[in-house]
Amino acid sequence: MLFLNESAIKEAVSMKQVIHAIDNAYKLYGSGAFHMPTRMQLQDETNTLLLMPCLTNESIGTKLITSFPNNTSHPTLQGLVILTSRETGECQALLDGSFITGIRTGAIGGSAIRHLANVDDNKLAIIGTGVQGLYQAIAACTERPIKDIYLYNRTTDKLPAFSEKLKAWIPANIHIHMTSTIEEAITFAHIIICSTTSNSPVLPNDPDLLTNKLIIGIGSFQPTMREFPEVLYQLADRLYIDTEDAIIESGDVQYPLEKGYLPKDSIISMSKLVMSNEEVSRSPDKSILFKSTGMALFDVVVSQLVYRQALKKGVGQQLT
Amino acid sequence: MLFLNESAIKEAVSMKQVIHAIDNAYKLYGSGAFHMPTRMQLQDETNTLLLMPCLTNESIGTKLITSFPNNTSHPTLQGLVILTSRETGECQALLDGSFITGIRTGAIGGSAIRHLANVDDNKLAIIGTGVQGLYQAIAACTERPIKDIYLYNRTTDKLPAFSEKLKAWIPANIHIHMTSTIEEAITFAHIIICSTTSNSPVLPNDPDLLTNKLIIGIGSFQPTMREFPEVLYQLADRLYIDTEDAIIESGDVQYPLEKGYLPKDSIISMSKLVMSNEEVSRSPDKSILFKSTGMALFDVVVSQLVYRQALKKGVGQQLT
Repeated sequence: MLFLNESAIKEAVSMKQVIHAIDNAYKLYGSGAFHMPTRMQLQDETNTLLLMPCLTNESIGTKLITSFPNNTSHPTLQGLVILTSRETGECQALLDGSFITGIRTGAIGGSAIRHLANVDDNKLAIIGTGVQGLYQAIAACTERPIKDIYLYNRTTDKLPAFSEKLKAWIPANIHIHMTSTIEEAITFAHIIICSTTSNSPVLPNDPDLLTNKLIIGIGSFQPTMREFPEVLYQLADRLYIDTEDAIIESGDVQYPLEKGYLPKDSIISMSKLVMSNEEVSRSPDKSILFKSTGMALFDVVVSQLVYRQALKKGVGQQLT
Repeated sequence: MLFLNESAIKEAVSMKQVIHAIDNAYKLYGSGAFHMPTRMQLQDETNTLLLMPCLTNESIGTKLITSFPNNTSHPTLQGLVILTSRETGECQALLDGSFITGIRTGAIGGSAIRHLANVDDNKLAIIGTGVQGLYQAIAACTERPIKDIYLYNRTTDKLPAFSEKLKAWIPANIHIHMTSTIEEAITFAHIIICSTTSNSPVLPNDPDLLTNKLIIGIGSFQPTMREFPEVLYQLADRLYIDTEDAIIESGDVQYPLEKGYLPKDSIISMSKLVMSNEEVSRSPDKSILFKSTGMALFDVVVSQLVYRQALKKGVGQQLT
């Protein structure tokens, strides 16, 4: 059994490879060649243990994640991904579940940029500078020739530390701008990524600031959570989603559907786009929306890639 | 995060301590101070992945077990127990799930012997010499001054290897008898333990061979499975069970209830007995029945004990 912590995973794979793996997961999702039961939850007051198993052609993967929203000295999300062989049932690998969640969520954003952003988009806004924001920025820089990153966070005191962390991952010639208003962060951005835990829209309801952009929503994984303002649904005639479950899970999809702001047939699965190889172009008076809520299939496909690469490179710790 | 494989677990705890832990789990079960949702199953043709989480006062434990009934070069049951802190959500320990299952199931039998066998019972029959049979025999020898062990298995070629393995665990003065008929195995036994995967009664339907004995059933964890013959329900006026779920899970409980061989009020939870400290005595013309189907609470309570003892003794491998 191979144990792969954060540094072993970093050594085993690049963000580019993880984004390829996400595209492969979309193809698997479209083909239906997987089995992913509804995740199991165990509630302990405000804390949650989530068990997310998924069977693919290669293995059975299970993500075990704890969500402790009031944690201060420990991360909010912690856990493991356990890969078990479909041939023998033995545990093949144990991977750091927070790091896998981080890079796979980053790579979901990266894949959306690969398929939906203009080739020359080079200005990026990151709204919400938590753990997810970091991997989103890294993945964006992997897919487009980003020159400027505008950072915005509700509490500005987090920005300097985030900026330092980000610098360690990206080319030195990328300019990082710490902003104090969301308008400042998004005005010049071609790509806006929201990764907050907000229950009300974080972007301003102003078409001038949102037109001709690719807007990616990573937060809003519950019906009560929202990041997108109403005007966005007029600016965008298509909303891409990473899984059909986003329709019931995310307020950013459920709310406009209920209000009639968004016809159901304008919601398109990314797996369809990836499988069709269709080119998406952005008209200057429109925006493109992408909403991710994630699913265990992504964790398992990415973990399988990490495991294969780790074996090839001889990284990780063998446990007997 | 502490990794505890089979040899580390052996070093950390004795069977006696594991039996104490089972008694503690019965008290916890009786007090209701735990939360154990229905286990989750992912089916892959004949193979199964089982996820069994359970919350106690100390931690959240999750047993992940794969059951691959057609395995030849690997064990049928393999997996892990993952202990996560209720304070911080972090993974505290990873334990070999097959070995934890083995010793906790052995200790469930051991606890039944502690509370239900005569003090001087010294002849033991083990019916079914698989992995579970081994830990049952070890636990029985921990609780009573066993002098003779009679082994019976449907295929006799497994007996010598089982006998050798068992010798490594028990005092050298215990006589091991390999028998070729079940009658030979049980005639003189005071305690009979069945640990088979049978779908029809494995014990003969003969009162002369079954009276004045403690009979323990470890197999029959599904309604289609049975080990106990009908006459047993006339010989015994009480059937002790380790969990209320045994009533719906085990054919050895469900079948006699349906047929009216066993009044429902003669089924008694071991947790009641353990909490009452009541002395049970066996009348010479009667037998006592105990049926175990197991539950995640046992795995978690035993894993917590192992984790605490391992920290104290400095055994196991620290993973970062």
